[in-house]
Amino acid sequence: MSAVAAPIANPAADLEPVLALTAKDMARVDALILDRMQSEVEIIPALARHLISAGGKRLRPMVTVAAARACGTGNDNHLKLAAAVEFIHAATLLHDDIVDGSSLRRGKPAAHLIWGAASSVLVGDFLFTRSFELMVETGSLKALRSLARASSVIAEGEVLQLTRAHDIELPREVYLEIIGAKTAELFAAAAESGAIAAVAPPERVRALRDYGRHLGLAFQLVDDALDYEAEAAALGKNAGDDFREGKVTLPLLLAIAATPEEGEFWRRTIQRREQTEEDFARAKALLDQTGAVAATLDEARAHAEAAKAALLGFDGPWRSALERLADFSVARGS
Amino acid sequence: MSAVAAPIANPAADLEPVLALTAKDMARVDALILDRMQSEVEIIPALARHLISAGGKRLRPMVTVAAARACGTGNDNHLKLAAAVEFIHAATLLHDDIVDGSSLRRGKPAAHLIWGAASSVLVGDFLFTRSFELMVETGSLKALRSLARASSVIAEGEVLQLTRAHDIELPREVYLEIIGAKTAELFAAAAESGAIAAVAPPERVRALRDYGRHLGLAFQLVDDALDYEAEAAALGKNAGDDFREGKVTLPLLLAIAATPEEGEFWRRTIQRREQTEEDFARAKALLDQTGAVAATLDEARAHAEAAKAALLGFDGPWRSALERLADFSVARGS
Repeated sequence: MSAVAAPIANPAADLEPVLALTAKDMARVDALILDRMQSEVEIIPALARHLISAGGKRLRPMVTVAAARACGTGNDNHLKLAAAVEFIHAATLLHDDIVDGSSLRRGKPAAHLIWGAASSVLVGDFLFTRSFELMVETGSLKALRSLARASSVIAEGEVLQLTRAHDIELPREVYLEIIGAKTAELFAAAAESGAIAAVAPPERVRALRDYGRHLGLAFQLVDDALDYEAEAAALGKNAGDDFREGKVTLPLLLAIAATPEEGEFWRRTIQRREQTEEDFARAKALLDQTGAVAATLDEARAHAEAAKAALLGFDGPWRSALERLADFSVARGS
Repeated sequence: MSAVAAPIANPAADLEPVLALTAKDMARVDALILDRMQSEVEIIPALARHLISAGGKRLRPMVTVAAARACGTGNDNHLKLAAAVEFIHAATLLHDDIVDGSSLRRGKPAAHLIWGAASSVLVGDFLFTRSFELMVETGSLKALRSLARASSVIAEGEVLQLTRAHDIELPREVYLEIIGAKTAELFAAAAESGAIAAVAPPERVRALRDYGRHLGLAFQLVDDALDYEAEAAALGKNAGDDFREGKVTLPLLLAIAATPEEGEFWRRTIQRREQTEEDFARAKALLDQTGAVAATLDEARAHAEAAKAALLGFDGPWRSALERLADFSVARGS
């Protein structure tokens, strides 16, 4: 209540403008998503509904819609591309949760724990193919190229992450390559395909692709930081999941590098994944003590600023809403 | 050696014409496949090579090539589509083997047993996305539509199969729907996309799609029959795998329907999957005794004939080679 207090970050307020501006389009995207996840094979819509309808902020399709509108689109192709983007995202979530053995997703039990891993693999495949059918319907080969390429980069990034899992000497550049591929590439293609749908000139397509990439990096860095901070309720997954899975993220790597005297602790908990109940608290203390979480959030803020800088050639309420979305990505970590 | 002996089926001879005619194109398709499965993430080409380079007759891409050549194609788009078809097939094999828990594929240990299920899921995703990149490069939205649709139907068929696994009362129509989706659809789209690549008139595209669909049904029916007949060496997988996995295929369904007095045996071995070493021999005896394998092969032969009938509007060596390929599909079961 002090007059000189630092400004309190308010993530919800930063999300408000883009939510308001995209609301009408996003209602149509939601209807399209619901329509295209249907199948006579009952388990498909049931599993898809569990994941897609239940939660998630639909950030990626919202970026597609906002990018298309920021370019003044005169057609509806961005709606199908936005739905395709969400299907790609949903498919990768289903497969990731199997790969990671995660138990909680968007605040609910992960689908593979309810329907089994086999169903999650196949329904993921189904959603993925549906995304391509949606893209084909737009008739835009450029958008198809962007999203097909993104899907390929995502899969490659996931494999890279898997092969370097539990590597406590993972170079920071490889970590950035991994999150660039598995997260930022889809945000980049989501924004790029929106601009393509609007038949925007090449420099605007490139600018929005840059925006999406930096936004995605900021989001992932904050996510990785929050895993050592947030409560499960705020995160929609278990805090400490990354640590317990032995996943090497930037905050962890920074703490490991800053605490050579703790080498055996890190080798035991991350490399060999021999953990006790108390280990997460100790890890969290080491991350706090070394400023690893704060440094990760600094890096995220730099990407949020780079995302905003990419919007220089735009103006009006859409530019402002996209800027606030970049603020939102890091405000969650404040 | 008798002069009046019935003609001896010779599968290899039936495959010869299409192998010879497509050899030059298939060498280029193979080079393309090898090129496009590369990645700096080492496990990707290693796993892909294990599956793709090691075995398999490349029947599906061969169908794409033959269809395009039968339509007198004047460009090279069919090569990329053929590689895309093989990648879709490879991706589904990787995911299927996880879903089914299969231990042998193309005569070698299944990839998930060597690299783990997680890698198989993700490399399958990677190959799948690479297939879409190849399609996009052809610039043919029609071919993209055909293969995207096929991929979606395949995934749906796999889920349907999974949800009806071990159902000893599975109606024959649902079995046919399942193999129509999971196998025949890719053969159909392989042939169709070849014709599309050749810019063939709609009636030829439809005819080749029909050809592919019937060919695929014939292949799958023979495969399902061989699972109760062939040695592992000939099959490239373990004979009896379907039975041991409790997979309900046409030969099994026919035997179950014809032996109501064996209800408890079928419920125990297929529904509950409580099997002993001797059960496969007993099942095989029941299938022999009821003529279930022979009836399945009859159905396969009917589809091979339907495939040939679809080629009426074609002539020359390509028609003849495609007809012999249809003969090959059933000669394996003789």
